[in-house]
Amino acid sequence: MAKKLFMFEKPLGMRDTLPFLYELKKQVRSVMAEEIERWGYEFIETPTLEYYETVGAASAIADHRLFKLLDQQGHTLVLRPDMTAPIARVAASRLYDDGNPLRLAYNANVFRAQQREGGRPAEFEQIGVELIGDGTVTADAEVISLMVALLKRTGLGRFSVAVGHIGYVNALFLEILGNEERASVLRRFLYEKNYVGYREHVKSWPLSSIDQKRLLDLLSLRGGTDVIEQAKTLVTSEKGRRAADELAVLMAVLRTYGVAEAVKLDMALVSHMSYYTGILFEVYAEQVGFPIGNGGRYDDLLAKFSRPAPATGFGLRVDRLIEAIGETDVRDDIECIVFSQERLAEAVELAEAKRAEGKRVVLQHIAGIRDIDAYSQRYRSIVYLLGRSGRDGQ
Amino acid sequence: MAKKLFMFEKPLGMRDTLPFLYELKKQVRSVMAEEIERWGYEFIETPTLEYYETVGAASAIADHRLFKLLDQQGHTLVLRPDMTAPIARVAASRLYDDGNPLRLAYNANVFRAQQREGGRPAEFEQIGVELIGDGTVTADAEVISLMVALLKRTGLGRFSVAVGHIGYVNALFLEILGNEERASVLRRFLYEKNYVGYREHVKSWPLSSIDQKRLLDLLSLRGGTDVIEQAKTLVTSEKGRRAADELAVLMAVLRTYGVAEAVKLDMALVSHMSYYTGILFEVYAEQVGFPIGNGGRYDDLLAKFSRPAPATGFGLRVDRLIEAIGETDVRDDIECIVFSQERLAEAVELAEAKRAEGKRVVLQHIAGIRDIDAYSQRYRSIVYLLGRSGRDGQ
Repeated sequence: MAKKLFMFEKPLGMRDTLPFLYELKKQVRSVMAEEIERWGYEFIETPTLEYYETVGAASAIADHRLFKLLDQQGHTLVLRPDMTAPIARVAASRLYDDGNPLRLAYNANVFRAQQREGGRPAEFEQIGVELIGDGTVTADAEVISLMVALLKRTGLGRFSVAVGHIGYVNALFLEILGNEERASVLRRFLYEKNYVGYREHVKSWPLSSIDQKRLLDLLSLRGGTDVIEQAKTLVTSEKGRRAADELAVLMAVLRTYGVAEAVKLDMALVSHMSYYTGILFEVYAEQVGFPIGNGGRYDDLLAKFSRPAPATGFGLRVDRLIEAIGETDVRDDIECIVFSQERLAEAVELAEAKRAEGKRVVLQHIAGIRDIDAYSQRYRSIVYLLGRSGRDGQ
Repeated sequence: MAKKLFMFEKPLGMRDTLPFLYELKKQVRSVMAEEIERWGYEFIETPTLEYYETVGAASAIADHRLFKLLDQQGHTLVLRPDMTAPIARVAASRLYDDGNPLRLAYNANVFRAQQREGGRPAEFEQIGVELIGDGTVTADAEVISLMVALLKRTGLGRFSVAVGHIGYVNALFLEILGNEERASVLRRFLYEKNYVGYREHVKSWPLSSIDQKRLLDLLSLRGGTDVIEQAKTLVTSEKGRRAADELAVLMAVLRTYGVAEAVKLDMALVSHMSYYTGILFEVYAEQVGFPIGNGGRYDDLLAKFSRPAPATGFGLRVDRLIEAIGETDVRDDIECIVFSQERLAEAVELAEAKRAEGKRVVLQHIAGIRDIDAYSQRYRSIVYLLGRSGRDGQ
């Protein structure tokens, strides 16, 4: 039985954004959207509700994290848990018609049901891009470079992009473990970043000491391009080596883009988004415990919408990004004109003149104010146009 | 039993916004938001999901039009059907603390479940303001003037704001009909704009011919300020006369604001939003069958959130506004640089230079393109940086 609600309560994980934070979000969103447009990406919007059977199933978010409801036709709907699957639906059905690369962008709220109070938000804003139809490593490099460019534009000081290749991890696991079931156990430890659990698990399995060492060595394959040659020594399969080679090409292109210094290789990087198929990445800022964004290649997702195509993209979380940026200079720069009835015309004229200069001006009838002393604190400046004018010069 | 879904399908009334329309919406939204900020209103955001028991119940949208779901604690949630009730919740709980006027604004999607295919959208974007804590007629005039200012900024050619007073209609009905039940029958005809039904119903009731005439005359009380004196002859109660007087004051203030020419009085105006208590209005554009926006005074809503306060505001529908504005000049002005591996560095440099000038530039590796002839049609201009350079000047 549900408890009685207090009038002001909001559902679990739901938050209000008050003016100061709104202004911050708007500024961050706006510089990022501008940069995304400069790179020739085109923004689209998709509905908040999608069919569970189509987009919900393609979204790679755990079922218990989905907000579900029934429509009047008996179909299950979901509040979109991510934007990649909806954009894949739109691209497949309406935009990706000639097989040529398609650059799309979004800025939207996504939804993940939460289990307890005080936890993570159940609704949060993402801004991101999807580059569909281009299977080259240059495409992966482009989205990473764009992501770095966006973060620089927001003024975020220090951040680091960890880049890996899920094809490499899968190849190594398959060579050593022989089956998908065991591989998925290890992948889970990696995406939870539970390296202690990973090590213990590896040691508990009846593997040769060489194979155990290969699995444990994976965890230390982090750093610059020198990591790639070490990574190649761990795998024997063509797939594994090709994945490592792709990372070498990627790093070269990132150097040309001038963003290589923001990137660190992490061969053990695995995402909770199960649709990634190749190069994948996460971005971390100092002092924020969770990634502020992530992305990667998902060459199999479009096929779920009957139009196979390679694709890559990323999404940044606006809430975490703002936390990472920290204090910034948002001025509350509203002026106020308080007037009485007789001087309405004068007040309107003054407000119009100031607004025409781009200033923010509140026009307030004195009769609507309860506590003028408190009210006058609220604005940067306040002008009083009260009573008959022209007597004493004001 | 639900039918099998086609992969591309979206839930009833749900729509995608493709790049061209997105750009239009963005431009319209952006000029309106800028003007709203200049008037000193502050934007806030509220969650997409609210409790049915609190905001859902206060929202004045028919129950069968709500999208409902259950959370894991057994509470019913709704996708917000309007923004006025959520903003009242936030204001009451966190912002309206000293009883002084509070100017808030929003730009958000709201949700209304639809019954059939091809009907109205189930999710649409609203932009609007709420002026809380100011009971003066000047406050009503301000929100109407702001709404007119926004519409002018969008470039909308012809539009007309119909203004009425629900207090006047209620006073007239109560005087003549004596009970709320009959009054609500007539109000329903009015908000459905079913004037034939209204007339027939009035004639079917056992009223004196004078009272019948008073009810029928209500329908013809439309036009300029001369309508107000006629309206006062129909009512005898103090309440009814005071409502008419408020409209006279309103029109005077609107003249001072310079927006009176966009306003027509309509004494029979009734809204489907049942929370209005005073002056209310709807805005119509030529060639759009539905109002593109509406608003009014709702002095009782804040009390539902334990903090009584007078309030007024409006909401504009971005979809209908764009339909009303019609064709506009949105240029698809993206340039493209197609390069091959060898000339990557040159391509990146050129793209960066153009982007720094504010141009929109796609950078595309030739290997990612399937059909170059089709692809080259897509952009305003295309530059090829292919093969070794410096041989023949290109």
